[in-house]
Amino acid sequence: ERYDIRRYPLPLTCVDSVLFSVVAGELKVLLVKRASHPDKGLWGLPGGFIDLEQDRDLEACAQRNLEAKTGVRAPYLEQLGGVGNASRDKRGWSITLAFYALMPCRQGLTQASTVEEAAWFALDALPLPLAFDHQQLIALAQDRLRQKALYSLVAAFALPESFTLTELQEIHEAILGQPLQKKSFRRRIEQAQVLEATGENRVEVGRPAKLYRVLPGAAHYRFSRNLEC
Amino acid sequence: ERYDIRRYPLPLTCVDSVLFSVVAGELKVLLVKRASHPDKGLWGLPGGFIDLEQDRDLEACAQRNLEAKTGVRAPYLEQLGGVGNASRDKRGWSITLAFYALMPCRQGLTQASTVEEAAWFALDALPLPLAFDHQQLIALAQDRLRQKALYSLVAAFALPESFTLTELQEIHEAILGQPLQKKSFRRRIEQAQVLEATGENRVEVGRPAKLYRVLPGAAHYRFSRNLEC
Repeated sequence: ERYDIRRYPLPLTCVDSVLFSVVAGELKVLLVKRASHPDKGLWGLPGGFIDLEQDRDLEACAQRNLEAKTGVRAPYLEQLGGVGNASRDKRGWSITLAFYALMPCRQGLTQASTVEEAAWFALDALPLPLAFDHQQLIALAQDRLRQKALYSLVAAFALPESFTLTELQEIHEAILGQPLQKKSFRRRIEQAQVLEATGENRVEVGRPAKLYRVLPGAAHYRFSRNLEC
Repeated sequence: ERYDIRRYPLPLTCVDSVLFSVVAGELKVLLVKRASHPDKGLWGLPGGFIDLEQDRDLEACAQRNLEAKTGVRAPYLEQLGGVGNASRDKRGWSITLAFYALMPCRQGLTQASTVEEAAWFALDALPLPLAFDHQQLIALAQDRLRQKALYSLVAAFALPESFTLTELQEIHEAILGQPLQKKSFRRRIEQAQVLEATGENRVEVGRPAKLYRVLPGAAHYRFSRNLEC
């Protein structure tokens, strides 16, 4: 009754992570330069194969590959979905399970032997062509992040623990690619009751601005109505 | 330089489809009774392995397996995501790429030799335990469908080409599991301009009700504000 796992050919299966950050109002993505075939020398997403002994599940596999190749540990990973077809990898039928996240831009990237270099790139200055279908995966992830920025506080993940409302709005605007009305943005944030004042201030454009932090659970808060651009 | 695809052990990879329908105000899901190991004799989702020769991509693979096992062709398939871990399948590390859709409940289900029976089950009367982690996949898909019913016209996919507004509201309510205010529902539908009157009527509870159809492109319309329950 034992099923022979090797009876049918299996597709190649890997994971990839699309890590976004915002630096000086610009949305960036974390890439690695491939040190091995296929697509050696091209930049692509940090990812890799599943280690059947070591990886508990897909997300753990994505975190392990991300950390091994860039030194970065994502604060969370959300699944973007699976892309699988006969043409995306010249080695044969291949599936990638893609994850994405937004995080503060950390320096001190490290890299593994399978990677020549790791770096953050502005979305409008990607080192094209990228490996495999990674440009499409980034576009998919960017679209998903944009949707999410309209109905959630995902932007806060790009910031340190405490931040000003101006900083939060700037992250939203970098993701959405367009300005938000300050008054309406602040009213929506206030109504949502998802932030609390830390009690501290920071001097911003000459006058002190209140610092806020995200309330527990607010990471998954959904506005019932989208923010207006 | 050729990469040896067999150098590393690969996880088992399959696809599964969660097909929903609404019958007499009740949300139902399409299941098949497994005729082979593992989990032989249990009901589960229609799915199967990827055929590297035959399947162009994951969605084509899901449609092929669905049709082969149930005779049903889904009007569309939306990806729910991938679930992969070391414990969901007793044969070893396994990934499923799950899809879901809403469709009219068609009769005349057929079945393949790998399936004993195919049938629609009400969500609150599933033949438990289901195979593998299929109960969790159904719960995930139901949650996603519920979200979608709050901001889109997905409900129309459960109906024939022309339908009354009462029928549409009943589908929304079956998915959401709670009643909607008729007046507010109709105003939202009207404002969205996603339906057109066919010019025909149907007698409904004694008086004629206008028939509508979905305008082209409206399948992907998103309300900027969720429907209120």
